[in-house]
Amino acid sequence: MKSLNIGLIGTGYMGKCHALAWNAVASVFGDVPRPRLAVLAEASQDLAERKARELGFERATGDWRTLVNDPDIDVVSITTPNAFHPEMAIAALEAGKHVWCEKPMATRLEDAERMLAAARASGRVAALGYNYIQNPATRLIRRILDEGQIGEVNHVRLEMDEDFMANPEDFFYWKSEASSGYGALDDFGVHPLSLLRVLLGGVRRVCGHMAKPYPDRPLQEGGRRVVETYDITTVLMELENGASGVLSLNRSAWGRKGRIFVQIFGSKGTIVYDQERMNEVQLYTVDGSRETQGFRTILTGPQHPPYDRFIPAPGHGLGFNDLKIIECRELIRRLAGEKAHLIEFEDGIRIERTVDAMARSAHEGRWIEVAT
Amino acid sequence: MKSLNIGLIGTGYMGKCHALAWNAVASVFGDVPRPRLAVLAEASQDLAERKARELGFERATGDWRTLVNDPDIDVVSITTPNAFHPEMAIAALEAGKHVWCEKPMATRLEDAERMLAAARASGRVAALGYNYIQNPATRLIRRILDEGQIGEVNHVRLEMDEDFMANPEDFFYWKSEASSGYGALDDFGVHPLSLLRVLLGGVRRVCGHMAKPYPDRPLQEGGRRVVETYDITTVLMELENGASGVLSLNRSAWGRKGRIFVQIFGSKGTIVYDQERMNEVQLYTVDGSRETQGFRTILTGPQHPPYDRFIPAPGHGLGFNDLKIIECRELIRRLAGEKAHLIEFEDGIRIERTVDAMARSAHEGRWIEVAT
Amino acid sequence: MKSLNIGLIGTGYMGKCHALAWNAVASVFGDVPRPRLAVLAEASQDLAERKARELGFERATGDWRTLVNDPDIDVVSITTPNAFHPEMAIAALEAGKHVWCEKPMATRLEDAERMLAAARASGRVAALGYNYIQNPATRLIRRILDEGQIGEVNHVRLEMDEDFMANPEDFFYWKSEASSGYGALDDFGVHPLSLLRVLLGGVRRVCGHMAKPYPDRPLQEGGRRVVETYDITTVLMELENGASGVLSLNRSAWGRKGRIFVQIFGSKGTIVYDQERMNEVQLYTVDGSRETQGFRTILTGPQHPPYDRFIPAPGHGLGFNDLKIIECRELIRRLAGEKAHLIEFEDGIRIERTVDAMARSAHEGRWIEVAT
Amino acid sequence: MKSLNIGLIGTGYMGKCHALAWNAVASVFGDVPRPRLAVLAEASQDLAERKARELGFERATGDWRTLVNDPDIDVVSITTPNAFHPEMAIAALEAGKHVWCEKPMATRLEDAERMLAAARASGRVAALGYNYIQNPATRLIRRILDEGQIGEVNHVRLEMDEDFMANPEDFFYWKSEASSGYGALDDFGVHPLSLLRVLLGGVRRVCGHMAKPYPDRPLQEGGRRVVETYDITTVLMELENGASGVLSLNRSAWGRKGRIFVQIFGSKGTIVYDQERMNEVQLYTVDGSRETQGFRTILTGPQHPPYDRFIPAPGHGLGFNDLKIIECRELIRRLAGEKAHLIEFEDGIRIERTVDAMARSAHEGRWIEVAT
Repeated sequence: MKSLNIGLIGTGYMGKCHALAWNAVASVFGDVPRPRLAVLAEASQDLAERKARELGFERATGDWRTLVNDPDIDVVSITTPNAFHPEMAIAALEAGKHVWCEKPMATRLEDAERMLAAARASGRVAALGYNYIQNPATRLIRRILDEGQIGEVNHVRLEMDEDFMANPEDFFYWKSEASSGYGALDDFGVHPLSLLRVLLGGVRRVCGHMAKPYPDRPLQEGGRRVVETYDITTVLMELENGASGVLSLNRSAWGRKGRIFVQIFGSKGTIVYDQERMNEVQLYTVDGSRETQGFRTILTGPQHPPYDRFIPAPGHGLGFNDLKIIECRELIRRLAGEKAHLIEFEDGIRIERTVDAMARSAHEGRWIEVAT
Repeated sequence: MKSLNIGLIGTGYMGKCHALAWNAVASVFGDVPRPRLAVLAEASQDLAERKARELGFERATGDWRTLVNDPDIDVVSITTPNAFHPEMAIAALEAGKHVWCEKPMATRLEDAERMLAAARASGRVAALGYNYIQNPATRLIRRILDEGQIGEVNHVRLEMDEDFMANPEDFFYWKSEASSGYGALDDFGVHPLSLLRVLLGGVRRVCGHMAKPYPDRPLQEGGRRVVETYDITTVLMELENGASGVLSLNRSAWGRKGRIFVQIFGSKGTIVYDQERMNEVQLYTVDGSRETQGFRTILTGPQHPPYDRFIPAPGHGLGFNDLKIIECRELIRRLAGEKAHLIEFEDGIRIERTVDAMARSAHEGRWIEVAT
Repeated sequence: MKSLNIGLIGTGYMGKCHALAWNAVASVFGDVPRPRLAVLAEASQDLAERKARELGFERATGDWRTLVNDPDIDVVSITTPNAFHPEMAIAALEAGKHVWCEKPMATRLEDAERMLAAARASGRVAALGYNYIQNPATRLIRRILDEGQIGEVNHVRLEMDEDFMANPEDFFYWKSEASSGYGALDDFGVHPLSLLRVLLGGVRRVCGHMAKPYPDRPLQEGGRRVVETYDITTVLMELENGASGVLSLNRSAWGRKGRIFVQIFGSKGTIVYDQERMNEVQLYTVDGSRETQGFRTILTGPQHPPYDRFIPAPGHGLGFNDLKIIECRELIRRLAGEKAHLIEFEDGIRIERTVDAMARSAHEGRWIEVAT
Repeated sequence: MKSLNIGLIGTGYMGKCHALAWNAVASVFGDVPRPRLAVLAEASQDLAERKARELGFERATGDWRTLVNDPDIDVVSITTPNAFHPEMAIAALEAGKHVWCEKPMATRLEDAERMLAAARASGRVAALGYNYIQNPATRLIRRILDEGQIGEVNHVRLEMDEDFMANPEDFFYWKSEASSGYGALDDFGVHPLSLLRVLLGGVRRVCGHMAKPYPDRPLQEGGRRVVETYDITTVLMELENGASGVLSLNRSAWGRKGRIFVQIFGSKGTIVYDQERMNEVQLYTVDGSRETQGFRTILTGPQHPPYDRFIPAPGHGLGFNDLKIIECRELIRRLAGEKAHLIEFEDGIRIERTVDAMARSAHEGRWIEVAT
């Protein structure tokens, strides 16, 4: 397999994360050619050059279209704000590039559908940045489920909470504008939905509720402005597999920093996971004597691949950035035509349609079927 | 204040708990006359006599009406299965007795309304056995809320989970019959609703979903029978105070034994409580330096009354039965005409109406207003 | 079996705990005659009468010798400060009473030895108030050990920490006087030693270290006084069974309220217990697949007797005071000539001798053999 | 500052960790020149070449002396088994290279002293791989201590436990040979000692105990061989700052995977840390109302530098490998003549002398002063 030439658009939160992953993946896994960090695009030439130096890219451009059309580039990492994803992803696909786009696909379902169409038309790989599904802990959960260790799943509860919108006196900024999306639902609700998709499959019907903890916020220039997005969202769900569930999201949850709390109930046991303790899985099964049954805290280790590629000793802890390195390895696997553990546009659109149904359901105050 | 003469109907789970509370309350609190454990009623004279001996009651009867009409009796503890509450409570109230009835009031709302009417007509005290609100931890939460330590509450999540219905191969018994009620919702959902009532007030609108993890169960005599109740219930809520919330119940949740998990989100902090660790309260507030903010685990102690009446040292742990002793002390306070921390029929009916709205909402698949 | 007539000396922390236990034991267990709370002794007649009323005793006396010599009394509960135990216990035994004495036996080893001699001479039952060994969780641990679930034990760590001496600006009081004993070691170190005794047996050799976190303390009347006791103690141990261990005690440990942390390491697993979460046991065993091994949190329940006598549902939680009720039942069992789970003077003296060796070892800075 | 040319000796556990750190440090921090991964040395030319390809090194050699004497090389990472450290480090220093050597310095104190002498003579930087001190959590603890938030420290407890030697039926291998060192004490006890050094300073006197959980082990070729090292070690300590402490080590502790449990007790609060939850710090202080005091769980975030260089959002979690990247940045800082947070040979020798005193103390069964 030849070395891949990488183009990166965006160097914020996830942009840096992509850069670190492309930079580390060959050393961590030891079984793929070292990608060439070829071109970095940012909003201006100056910024792009500075960031290229920092992140180890060879060239820089202030115009992302230059990058997308560079004949040298094999794969384009898109890490800009969500509203830019459709245009960039479609342009890259049309230019014959593989795309690795951060989640969610878009702020409007129709844009996401256009992205899917472009991916299909191009014949290229179009993958999404759902990194939490890459955690060895998540893979362990899937294995526990596949092996039937907790029997048939009949109920699931998903929570995702952070507190970056929790302070009512923080200034109004774009995350409170309707143009940014619905709020917690698409801003980060897609993360637990990606776990749901990978672990338990699709959602059939939903009934959602969205709420604003704070009706308005102060403006930096004085006065106050009405908040247009919903920082809190809760959704009843019926899954395709027949299980019931609930999704609870709150981006104004004081004290929660990166909590994704998952409870999966089955006929023979229960699985619990908390992203804030991402190296642990809680498992209860009905095996053995009643005197000693209990939730066990499993610390991930080399027996939970690909943890072993990072550290040979158990319980030492992977970090958030390591998940993106694993995702990068999966993408490379996919580009080589192998079976990979990834959410591509074909699956990602299912998440977008679920989000769309949830938002409509909340607006209309009734149950809605998810389009398939 | 004179010593109270007590009549107890029922000696199962909560019957024994009442007996222990009446027996201990004077010694624990040291400020009330020792109640006289006068008469115990059970299904037969034999059983009643044996239980009276065990639990320290003076007399025994196989006919609860004898007890209810005994001129000697001041207060009647009713701890029989829920379906019997209305008849017994109304008879006792009509006989001029004070009533201490286990939760919920009844299996049908109209019966609960009749109970309320009887209480009003009698002028007697009619209290319900919502023991979890008596935990010093719960009182601490109320105090934290009252003092505004977490600001204005905007969202709440309540979960209650146990696993006594989790085994799909357990034989069908009355808890799966429709005559026993809706299932998890009234069977134990009223517990978190009692906490909600005491901590945050009433519920305005609800949208519920009820599910059966197992469609049928084996019969002891062979064959299988269709399950008629719902072991899983999830409900979206809008509270009267404007906050949103969700209630999640599962009595087939493997590994959960007495979990009541409460998360209360406010504009300045968050409170978390888990009944399985009933001597702890988790509190996050935005006070102090950002470097050292975090959820603090508060262990209850003498500074959280009436813990001090049980143990002078902090962190040593109250137990489930101690909550009923506190409730008993509150009831005695109420009987003496003092202000007491209790859920009486006047408040209890609000819980029953909320349950009724939740069940109807689930059946009809739509939002429903709670009657006030 | 006839009903026992009880005399109680002392109504402080543990005095009330004894009174509650004698009052509740028959109702909780349902299989023993109801003890008669006959006589209560306190420092003055007035106080004794008030406390007798509160705690439900029939008679009161300001002179404990009157109680001890009362021909009516069968058992004497001794709950006064440790320095009074020898005189009272010996007098009670010599008067032919059974004795239930709080721990430790005495403040000086020679007094404890005299108590043992008196017990032997009397032929009466002489039991000690080591309540933590009564926890169903502790019994579960013993059972796990007996069944070899963690293999052969090779190492143990015991910690006990509270913070009642943690504030350096609290006034000097008798706990800082040498006459009160060594400090943390005998004040509460005997509690983990009682667990050690019951779970793993005797201690062969020790090497201790005692420290004073604060050299002096303010006096209420002004000025400061040198602290004479040791709030911190740490001891290396070799056990009779060949295992090694360490005991760590700190009664000036801010934030610790009733922590007794136990770690028992064996050739096939590990047990962890924390008294601040007294309804949980942590167990790790090497059974099953490597992928899902982990410490399991076992919540105590009816399957862990005698939890079932208190509550029929699991995970609902016993409290500190419940342990004394269990101890009381064991004492009654012992008085009836049955096999009981108790630490009597014959075993208690082993704990006292271990404490003595630890203190001498700390003073002399060397390893010392424990007398047997 | 010019780019550094790196030589790496060894590609096992920590060798890969060094390679990943050198590879990532520039991208993560963005403020240092990208190091050149120049030469990799392994036991054979073949292995070296394969590993160089995997880890991104330009050249490879089967002879570490070639690497050490390569005029191109600025810094040598030494990650071979401990017994090789002295020869390699001394050769590298004598060749004028800076050295980054994994911990501990050597298996014998005299070798470590020779290494220190070589470092002094060379005038080069000689740093040790004590990565746990680099955790932002650890730095937060140091800051809390420096600011006096828990007052004056009077007691500390350190535990380090893993289970890689826990199975008594694992075959005998070199870690059970006396030539590998004392056992748990130097194998990993130096890690908590590095934390102790950085957080609280030096150790004055020690009294240790070392134990063998299993006297012998099976040989692969049949039969059994006597174990020569001590998998369990416990040490009483008096620190230079006047505090007392205890160090407990167990590398046969079933279920513990990377536990380093630290409890620091002060006159105004307590700090608790567990390496298995490396993104959390527990802090108890006596500030505020007694009703709401408790241990708070602080999740590390951007407010705890240099967490912010990895992830802009709090509570998302660093991993074990990230600590080495931070250490690498500190080393580069040190090479640039800036103040750095590192344990160099000058400090590392203090840890080695402490280990030596602990081992001698255990062998002689008495307190021993640590050489300064």
